[in-house]
Amino acid sequence: MESFMSTSLASEACASHPPHVEAGDVLSAIAAKRDGASLSAQSIECVVRGYTEGRIPDYQMAAWLMAVACRGMNDAETTALTKAYIDSGVRLEFADHRRPLIDKHSTGGVGDKTTLFVAPVVAACGVSVMKISGRGLDFAGGTVDKLESIPGLRIDLDHEQILEVLDRTRMVVVGQNTRLVPADGATYALRDVTGSVESLPLIAASVMSKKIAAGTDGAVIDVKYGSGALVGDIARAEELGRLMIRIGSAFGLPCRVVLSDMGQPLGRAVGNALEVKEALSALRGDQVPGFTELGHVLAVEMLCLAEPGLMRQAAEARVRDAVSSGRALAVFRAWVAGQGGDARVVGNPDLLPTATRVDVVPASWSGWISDVDARAVGKLALRLGAGRLRQEDRVDHAVGVVLRRRVGDEVRQGEPLAEVHWRGDADPEAVSAEATAAFTIDSRPVEPRSGVHSVL
Amino acid sequence: MESFMSTSLASEACASHPPHVEAGDVLSAIAAKRDGASLSAQSIECVVRGYTEGRIPDYQMAAWLMAVACRGMNDAETTALTKAYIDSGVRLEFADHRRPLIDKHSTGGVGDKTTLFVAPVVAACGVSVMKISGRGLDFAGGTVDKLESIPGLRIDLDHEQILEVLDRTRMVVVGQNTRLVPADGATYALRDVTGSVESLPLIAASVMSKKIAAGTDGAVIDVKYGSGALVGDIARAEELGRLMIRIGSAFGLPCRVVLSDMGQPLGRAVGNALEVKEALSALRGDQVPGFTELGHVLAVEMLCLAEPGLMRQAAEARVRDAVSSGRALAVFRAWVAGQGGDARVVGNPDLLPTATRVDVVPASWSGWISDVDARAVGKLALRLGAGRLRQEDRVDHAVGVVLRRRVGDEVRQGEPLAEVHWRGDADPEAVSAEATAAFTIDSRPVEPRSGVHSVL
Repeated sequence: MESFMSTSLASEACASHPPHVEAGDVLSAIAAKRDGASLSAQSIECVVRGYTEGRIPDYQMAAWLMAVACRGMNDAETTALTKAYIDSGVRLEFADHRRPLIDKHSTGGVGDKTTLFVAPVVAACGVSVMKISGRGLDFAGGTVDKLESIPGLRIDLDHEQILEVLDRTRMVVVGQNTRLVPADGATYALRDVTGSVESLPLIAASVMSKKIAAGTDGAVIDVKYGSGALVGDIARAEELGRLMIRIGSAFGLPCRVVLSDMGQPLGRAVGNALEVKEALSALRGDQVPGFTELGHVLAVEMLCLAEPGLMRQAAEARVRDAVSSGRALAVFRAWVAGQGGDARVVGNPDLLPTATRVDVVPASWSGWISDVDARAVGKLALRLGAGRLRQEDRVDHAVGVVLRRRVGDEVRQGEPLAEVHWRGDADPEAVSAEATAAFTIDSRPVEPRSGVHSVL
Repeated sequence: MESFMSTSLASEACASHPPHVEAGDVLSAIAAKRDGASLSAQSIECVVRGYTEGRIPDYQMAAWLMAVACRGMNDAETTALTKAYIDSGVRLEFADHRRPLIDKHSTGGVGDKTTLFVAPVVAACGVSVMKISGRGLDFAGGTVDKLESIPGLRIDLDHEQILEVLDRTRMVVVGQNTRLVPADGATYALRDVTGSVESLPLIAASVMSKKIAAGTDGAVIDVKYGSGALVGDIARAEELGRLMIRIGSAFGLPCRVVLSDMGQPLGRAVGNALEVKEALSALRGDQVPGFTELGHVLAVEMLCLAEPGLMRQAAEARVRDAVSSGRALAVFRAWVAGQGGDARVVGNPDLLPTATRVDVVPASWSGWISDVDARAVGKLALRLGAGRLRQEDRVDHAVGVVLRRRVGDEVRQGEPLAEVHWRGDADPEAVSAEATAAFTIDSRPVEPRSGVHSVL
């Protein structure tokens, strides 16, 4: 059987409706949700379709989304929303010889370079990985920006090229495809400017529609909580994770959710090329505090999803072996070359963009680190140029922050807390003060914090 | 002291802000309200001002309004919103010799011609009345449309003309002035298409801002409940009424609220010229079932507001005398002439527009009327041409429905339930069926329903 992209059939739910969405239909859907009622699948489908096709104006969709953000959605509604998103675009399909094919997703955070480690490790274990990644927005980084710090690497592959890279290296990482789930793309842009990003059903439908449309056999989702995450507290993160698993199940997509801490940045490096270097270091077998652990957990869950009978201990052994044998690093090298990138960076990370100036930020007093505020570090990296405030901003791949201390570490006055990699184009004292303020130093010893809370 | 219109000073609350509203300010206001927090007066002022001045786009305002509709507002927030609306435009002021000046407002309904009765009665009792009226929208009629069925009558008076008519006749009725509370005008149009009309704080701020900006000494507000009202049940209507009184009090405007039934249409006539005829009939002293009672209650409350020491019984006697003496009708005649209308309609209502066809709708069986659905009658009148579905639709002043039976009345099979006044431009059987369906006939006797529930 050949691989192909299928355009989805028009949903039957809305097919009985006239092609023109009546303004009254939208208004009654808004009013019903405003008053706390459940919406029918047909109503949700018609709102999403009407908006995607331009018949429902932004201001009505904004009101509908806010009513959903305030009143919530039950599982049936969230499933219907996910389906409406999926039906707005194409679904990828893959021939059997490329299966099992596993996807991995993170709800986003600061210093999150896990894809760059996990995908080659899992591929080196014989399981294919396809990952569709996004760009960073605000203080949270995006995998696409990190990849683009590798000279020449292309993320805008067409389906033929995706299959070619996948067949050659067992892994492929591409940017968002506008033909995949366009309704989510349009809706997400509106949510971002109307305060309805932080809604569990809206997040779940947005993430799961892309996972399901991508046509993989399973997805491991890294749901983060803490100051640098979309969801602040662990209880809400767990609620979101369980909801995603139920939505996946409704569409026959097995999912595992890993709940992980985004109270402090992941690993040490925050900033695009800096994070690629850190991922390479982990692939070479270095223990990167707070990063290697999460990477191993995610890789193990991906292997277990791909091979349902596999025991965790056996999976862990395979992950360790993929790294220590150098096979994971070899996959990474082949994959970079496969997507047109300069594979020499693997052996020589100094070929990656490098900042013109590195300032070391010293501790003001001695003690133990009790907090490194991920959001504050992310905002500093953003201001240095590592991210974008608006979609059209340009990213400087070289700049960022490297943590020299993490929660639980001891530090003496004057010893380094962090390095700031930058262009030196602002007041150094202000930059240093901002970096210092992200750290909290306690006079009593503090336990290191595990980055992985649990697996659902 | 001369009367004048004052442009309000820029509110101090927002004056410390830069002239450009930051997108982040709006987003944090939306997020705070979405999460159930209270907004500061400054935040509310900046959102309203930003929207009115075109810096906040419709989609963000729609999200903010929906968050308010879902989460509500406390009194301090509703007061701040009212103030922000008022500060967006001019405030009318009147010299002492024109005081006391009383306003009257209705939350809208079907067959509501009370202004045409109450204003001349109160003016005939020596108290000046200024009323700013709206047009009808959807199934609810508007006083301006009713007035325009009187040939020549103008409702677009400037402030000089308002004072002139007021001084000559002690009453004046004009249309919405775009210089008065423009923020409410803009916001109302958006609420209407984004499902946030039915929100008590938004309704209260919208109504009260106009009452306060109009510069009168007191306002009687007729809050309606039932199928033909904005607010369905009596408990919510009472909540709205009490909120309006508290907001009025915060701005030093004494208010009385009358809670009245809009489960069945008010009086017998629904449709513009038909309602003017009914109002004239009541002014001539006819007892119009369900209408005269409410008219008297509203007039009494207006007199008591104007003269704080006045006893209700004495006020009632003055109201009755104003009608029976013919003075109220004389005021009406002088007022129509004062606003450029053909005053001959007072003596000869047949000069008003008349429908080309009148069909009598008979009862299908005998019994007692237990319900006349105001919303259904309003929708029928709307479809006949008495109202407008969109702001730009043209109104036919002649058409409408006249109820021949009201709740509690006995009817025998074949006797008339209603008259349909129309152009005969649709299927007569469908029109008749729609009129019949508005009536519920019970086999057992039904008590007549009082139109006035209570006065707050």
